[in-house]
Amino acid sequence: MISGTNAIGNTLSKKGNHTYKTFNPKENKDTEWTFFEATSAEIDEAVDLATEAYKEYKDFSGSKKAKFLNAIADEIEALGDELIHTYCKESGLPEGRARGERGRTMGQLRSFATLLQDGSWVEAVIEKGQPNRAPMPKSDIRKMLFPLGPVVVFGASNFPLAFSTAGGDTASALAAGCPVIVKSHPMHAGTGELVASAIIKAAEKTGMPNGVFSNLNSSGIAVGQQLVKHPKVKAVGFTGSLKGGMALYKLANERDEPIPVFAEMGSINPVVILPSALENDSDVWATKYASSITMGAGQFCTNPGLVLGLKGDNLDSFISTLSEEILKLEPTCMLHPTIHAKYQEGKKELSEQNGVTIVADYDKPTDKNIGSQTILKVKGSDFLSNTKLHTEVFGPFSVVVSCDDASQLEKILNQLDGQLTGTILGSEDELKTYEEIVDGLQNRVGRILFNGMPTGVEVCSSMVHGGPFPASTDARFTSVGTSAIKRWVRPVSFQDWPNRFLPQALQDENPLGIVRLEEGSYIK
Amino acid sequence: MISGTNAIGNTLSKKGNHTYKTFNPKENKDTEWTFFEATSAEIDEAVDLATEAYKEYKDFSGSKKAKFLNAIADEIEALGDELIHTYCKESGLPEGRARGERGRTMGQLRSFATLLQDGSWVEAVIEKGQPNRAPMPKSDIRKMLFPLGPVVVFGASNFPLAFSTAGGDTASALAAGCPVIVKSHPMHAGTGELVASAIIKAAEKTGMPNGVFSNLNSSGIAVGQQLVKHPKVKAVGFTGSLKGGMALYKLANERDEPIPVFAEMGSINPVVILPSALENDSDVWATKYASSITMGAGQFCTNPGLVLGLKGDNLDSFISTLSEEILKLEPTCMLHPTIHAKYQEGKKELSEQNGVTIVADYDKPTDKNIGSQTILKVKGSDFLSNTKLHTEVFGPFSVVVSCDDASQLEKILNQLDGQLTGTILGSEDELKTYEEIVDGLQNRVGRILFNGMPTGVEVCSSMVHGGPFPASTDARFTSVGTSAIKRWVRPVSFQDWPNRFLPQALQDENPLGIVRLEEGSYIK
Repeated sequence: MISGTNAIGNTLSKKGNHTYKTFNPKENKDTEWTFFEATSAEIDEAVDLATEAYKEYKDFSGSKKAKFLNAIADEIEALGDELIHTYCKESGLPEGRARGERGRTMGQLRSFATLLQDGSWVEAVIEKGQPNRAPMPKSDIRKMLFPLGPVVVFGASNFPLAFSTAGGDTASALAAGCPVIVKSHPMHAGTGELVASAIIKAAEKTGMPNGVFSNLNSSGIAVGQQLVKHPKVKAVGFTGSLKGGMALYKLANERDEPIPVFAEMGSINPVVILPSALENDSDVWATKYASSITMGAGQFCTNPGLVLGLKGDNLDSFISTLSEEILKLEPTCMLHPTIHAKYQEGKKELSEQNGVTIVADYDKPTDKNIGSQTILKVKGSDFLSNTKLHTEVFGPFSVVVSCDDASQLEKILNQLDGQLTGTILGSEDELKTYEEIVDGLQNRVGRILFNGMPTGVEVCSSMVHGGPFPASTDARFTSVGTSAIKRWVRPVSFQDWPNRFLPQALQDENPLGIVRLEEGSYIK
Repeated sequence: MISGTNAIGNTLSKKGNHTYKTFNPKENKDTEWTFFEATSAEIDEAVDLATEAYKEYKDFSGSKKAKFLNAIADEIEALGDELIHTYCKESGLPEGRARGERGRTMGQLRSFATLLQDGSWVEAVIEKGQPNRAPMPKSDIRKMLFPLGPVVVFGASNFPLAFSTAGGDTASALAAGCPVIVKSHPMHAGTGELVASAIIKAAEKTGMPNGVFSNLNSSGIAVGQQLVKHPKVKAVGFTGSLKGGMALYKLANERDEPIPVFAEMGSINPVVILPSALENDSDVWATKYASSITMGAGQFCTNPGLVLGLKGDNLDSFISTLSEEILKLEPTCMLHPTIHAKYQEGKKELSEQNGVTIVADYDKPTDKNIGSQTILKVKGSDFLSNTKLHTEVFGPFSVVVSCDDASQLEKILNQLDGQLTGTILGSEDELKTYEEIVDGLQNRVGRILFNGMPTGVEVCSSMVHGGPFPASTDARFTSVGTSAIKRWVRPVSFQDWPNRFLPQALQDENPLGIVRLEEGSYIK
């Protein structure tokens, strides 16, 4: 049952007077639950507890932490239909999506458990001493990765499970050995509370220290600000808007001790459709992209919000098929009235820019909070001269740019901000013909695709979900996939340390059987 | 011959009117050379050229870049005694140090060449597609590291070769595939110019694009500021003071597109001397530390500026031997009158703090700019209550803290700022007895040593030269050793990319023969 309380470690707590409710966008009314915003004292308690928990938790073996992560997945499953129904109520998303996202969330947790069981992720490097080296003896030096300390995670509105309470940020930070304090997302506080209860049950069952996880309710920005400024917090994970991410990034950099903020922010995910694709597969791509643009009411960070092609009949025909196909689709409910209102505002603003034509606009009557799809068209020169058109409109929306020639298309790519993804549609040979375009695109993105759709981010070790600013605040890391663990650690060298007191990962005998770089070679 | 010009790529340039001279601290007079400060236009030219060079250079093979790095080492050697004599004139450091540092610089360049020839550093990860996977086919996804773009390097005053023009930052950035613009250190602009000429010769001989390297003179802060704010600059390497590093860090974060600044800043490198070391090896350690504290006139970032022990006769006896031994040593010349003046000021300020006793102070008459060694002593409670005593005094200086008990010592460690290094002197068993102290120290440092001295940083793949803030702005990276290359790169994923157009490191056939993580296993 949802009680509206905060979880300060294993203790439920509602000391504050400020309450708020979540909203059911499909029924356009508040849900039945009332949530108690965390007080300043509760925030301090959670951080203090996390700091204490860190002392013990950071040294836990990979297999012990793996048991914890697997237990979280089990406990989330054990929440059963209550979780699914709460998710649907608070997000307006359909049940199939809820079940799929639950599976993804559990899969993520288990993939980090597998990573921990293998253990090689700590990047152990061993260089033994050479006491007889001339002119100076060489010390024995070994290094590996260690967790940073308590991490604050801001859940994302658009993934109430996979990017929220027990999502990729939480899973990767817990895997790294960092206690986690979640600033619960106000739009799905009930879903968050249920998931938090599963994490806490798992923590208790597997003998984790109290404080390894806390969940704090918050309807505004104050709780998040206090958390990011707290001197005992050592890193922050965030998925959301550019504005929100940059506010936290600034706060974190103004601290006496600046800390890393991994904010995954906006992206318009440019798609370049090359002549052969327009000539041979125009209808296929138009149909696929109609579906990709509207998937989840367009509320994905990898939503293809920009399509670039060379002007001509083939592009016109692509645009008309895309428009036809996208208008056949039934629009769906958005996450919240404020997101819906922002979507309406954003597409109105872009539609009114110079040179913009509306080529598809779903205009049948709909229920409240339904996100109707819209496609705009603009010439390359108008797009180039107006950066307003480069901004993300979060929803089932895309802008098709008709470029005069390849050089204008290249110029547009080189002027774009950093992006999570970039896609090339075309033939293999065109990758050579349009080398500069491909190069320009690769230089702007974290993931580049050939003949595919950017929506649907695989959780795996080769995934980069991140990208040059402002797609993320730190292009050197990914927030999806097992490499996400690298955000929460730093290397430490041990010099001439006695073997028996070294962490197991660095001991001569390699008791964990992990892959290590020893004297320049990878050895297991 | 030293001409005082800037190097804008391969072109020597002196368009400005502002000139300055370097200083010979041993003779306490200006050197014979005049340097032309880079103008705003020259800065833009260098960055534009670097941006152009990047387009080509980023795709060069490891072996091609390795030839360039090896050629730089050769050309530095070919500078012969002119380099050594210029170095000595501009730094006041002895010839042996100059030759040693030249060897280290060349060794660093060659170690990155070896890393490039091996090629595995790009962290290639390959997960092939599973077109028949249910319910959704899995795309083929592969990732590897790519260079960020033009990098600005600020040389350090205290390592005119190894941490300057062709030092670790430059070598690692060039190795990564990033063009480098050096903001020449004003104290050794002549040394810098000679090294820059060697880099440019090497670039020309090995067919590097013009602009892969530039060297800009600057006596103040304006050149550095303009470089860090330049939109085409993608990362910054800095070694120097906390004040200087933080100013650049702030500037970089205030840009429209924030960029990473790797600033390696101050550190007092705490040394914990445990009871057994005081009881059994007091004199040995006192003698070794007298030498470590004064080495290079104390002008090392790893200088042991803080020694912590438990109060008692043994600690008193250690202090008196340390004082005796350190006063036997001949003090040496510091790098510059301003550094000398700051040293005098710093030790005076710390000497006057509450509860501080001066236990050794070299007071024989010396030449100008000589840094005389000083050891202070203070009680744990006084040290705890006065953070002024925690600040770095750059020079042959150290503070010994006499702690009431282990718990006070632990408290002090937990209150200290982040550090480059921390050292434990004692017996193996004491690592267990004083577990909390060891743990507290490890949590504060990038490198932890057992029974050694922190000065003397080995250049190798297991080294961490960095540490929690404010030792560095980013504890997740090292500035010494081959892992330093990781600062200048970001991962990019390729999804369903045709094999023949993938970078070689990601092609099915593994034509480079590198170690890759394929389907979860490390394979070569």
